[in-house]
Amino acid sequence: MNLSVPTLIIDKEKCRQNISSMAAKAKMNHCLLRPHFKTHQSASVGQLFKAEGIEHITVSSVRMAQYFADLGFHNITIAFPVNIREMDAINHLTEKINLNLLVESTEALHYLAQHLKNPVQVFIKIDTAYHRTGILFSDTPSIDAILSAINASEKMQFLGFLTHAGHSYHASSTEEIMEIHSDTQTKMTRLKKHYQDKYPSLQISVGDTPTCSLAEDFSWADEMRPGNFVYYDLMQYQLGSCPWDNIAVAVACPVVALHPEREEVIIYGGAVHLSKDQLTISPYGTVYGWVAHPTDKGWGDPMDGVYVKKLSQEHGTLHVPKDKMHYFKIGDLAYIIPVHSCLTANLLKDDQMII
Amino acid sequence: MNLSVPTLIIDKEKCRQNISSMAAKAKMNHCLLRPHFKTHQSASVGQLFKAEGIEHITVSSVRMAQYFADLGFHNITIAFPVNIREMDAINHLTEKINLNLLVESTEALHYLAQHLKNPVQVFIKIDTAYHRTGILFSDTPSIDAILSAINASEKMQFLGFLTHAGHSYHASSTEEIMEIHSDTQTKMTRLKKHYQDKYPSLQISVGDTPTCSLAEDFSWADEMRPGNFVYYDLMQYQLGSCPWDNIAVAVACPVVALHPEREEVIIYGGAVHLSKDQLTISPYGTVYGWVAHPTDKGWGDPMDGVYVKKLSQEHGTLHVPKDKMHYFKIGDLAYIIPVHSCLTANLLKDDQMII
Repeated sequence: MNLSVPTLIIDKEKCRQNISSMAAKAKMNHCLLRPHFKTHQSASVGQLFKAEGIEHITVSSVRMAQYFADLGFHNITIAFPVNIREMDAINHLTEKINLNLLVESTEALHYLAQHLKNPVQVFIKIDTAYHRTGILFSDTPSIDAILSAINASEKMQFLGFLTHAGHSYHASSTEEIMEIHSDTQTKMTRLKKHYQDKYPSLQISVGDTPTCSLAEDFSWADEMRPGNFVYYDLMQYQLGSCPWDNIAVAVACPVVALHPEREEVIIYGGAVHLSKDQLTISPYGTVYGWVAHPTDKGWGDPMDGVYVKKLSQEHGTLHVPKDKMHYFKIGDLAYIIPVHSCLTANLLKDDQMII
Repeated sequence: MNLSVPTLIIDKEKCRQNISSMAAKAKMNHCLLRPHFKTHQSASVGQLFKAEGIEHITVSSVRMAQYFADLGFHNITIAFPVNIREMDAINHLTEKINLNLLVESTEALHYLAQHLKNPVQVFIKIDTAYHRTGILFSDTPSIDAILSAINASEKMQFLGFLTHAGHSYHASSTEEIMEIHSDTQTKMTRLKKHYQDKYPSLQISVGDTPTCSLAEDFSWADEMRPGNFVYYDLMQYQLGSCPWDNIAVAVACPVVALHPEREEVIIYGGAVHLSKDQLTISPYGTVYGWVAHPTDKGWGDPMDGVYVKKLSQEHGTLHVPKDKMHYFKIGDLAYIIPVHSCLTANLLKDDQMII
């Protein structure tokens, strides 16, 4: 490829397959697929979703909502506790699109009630076990207080309960991911049962790439919000969420120095391209990305024992066993499968190539 | 402050002081201060250096060289092993500025000899002990081979030896940083002695923020290239390179959720704002940033026991002991001192405010 700087290579066909198989799973479960666009933040990848008939999306910031609203997505959930400092931007957005906000505190709700200019729908963020944000699934007194605050405002309409089982990213086996799925189902179903007499149309929204990739039964949910699955990455491959061939992105990095005496190759590709997200992979230790064999079209199988062992701002250090050193020459491109494609895609927003 | 999204706040007066004290140290040692601009990548901060009379700079990519060349910096060293895939951009740059390149292999030099259109000066990258890139200081046969390749080309002029003692970032005490400084001095001085009969004007270029901040004697060097010192950060503070009050940047992050039951506050400010660079600080464990008390003007002292303990893409989780919880309200700004200001400034290039 005729590239001169670190570039995110996006395999369109793999993205399409990932989108279409997740859409089929949602359809079979009579769920709405509302994919999280924070992974790609890309107009072109957004178009691949549109081609599959997907119009409702999730984002993680007001700015992303603005970006995709301008691209014609008119039903957007901002899956982040509402940031009341962005009230003006929120009011501006609600003039042109259907916006769904996430709430978990009466303080934020009182502020919204006073400052919202147009109607919004709100999800209550529920914590099933991840313990990052949200109200604990069992804390119905707090949920009732939130519901009262929502109902007291003419501008807000209660949409349902939303959770993110992000602890699935830290599971040590696919069995554990399936246990998390089952636990989430139990807790969210109980919550729905508790409130559905009063709110018969309330929705249950779930979604993290590991459970959405591995579990089949989402018939108990109304909406799935995975994001990472469009690209997948080394972390998801290690978790067992996807086969290697479903990973749809790699970073092409120029080789700039060879140090065979210490089994190292230096690439132009550092923390400002790949991000410092890391995995511990036995027996190698800390890994910041894995090297794939180049092919005529892009990249192929993983290169045995060849990985990114260190990152500084612009430098990446590959560990390359002596018998693999002949694969690398100064001026070549090395294809790196990133640990966490969301952070890598965010860093390489301006340096992408779709193949 | 009237901010709605995570924003890098740059204290101009602190930057000025950091620049002026490093410039004074360079002057006292009859050294050229050629600061590394990869830390800030900012036109405004570049102007603060210009105001101090600094015209010669260091960058870590061809793209940064283009950016600062357009801003009137006409003597630039790209302190990264030359990436031959960027030959066209390099030739374009050499039409308008004095460009210094870094070489460490005959392969790259042969390519340069064939493709350079205009004269460049080259530094040979020397590895004194960091073992990231460069030729080992003691490997004079390899250095001789590099020098022959340089001298065989009419387009290249040998400028001197350049090293980066990046292992100072991993020192466990200021004594160890001083030992690294002394070791670098010994090795680079020996190298200069070995080659100065043949190359009487050869230069020794050194520079990493820890040794440049702590050591006083650079009379043996010709050029200092620290970068981080203009901002400093939590890592440099922990290393002992600077007092807290010299840290010139903080990230202002909106508070979006409170979880006093687990001593946590959630901020809008995640890995895409702060970067995932981390420190281990006893007795706290992994730390992604430290919280400072807000002041009328910006931020002040560190808040005792309050730090960033987890980061996901957009969320930051602060650890906040129960007796400090009253400092945080939804909609407030939390001021985070980043672990590594270079990576944070890179992420927040479009969201900065100078105070």
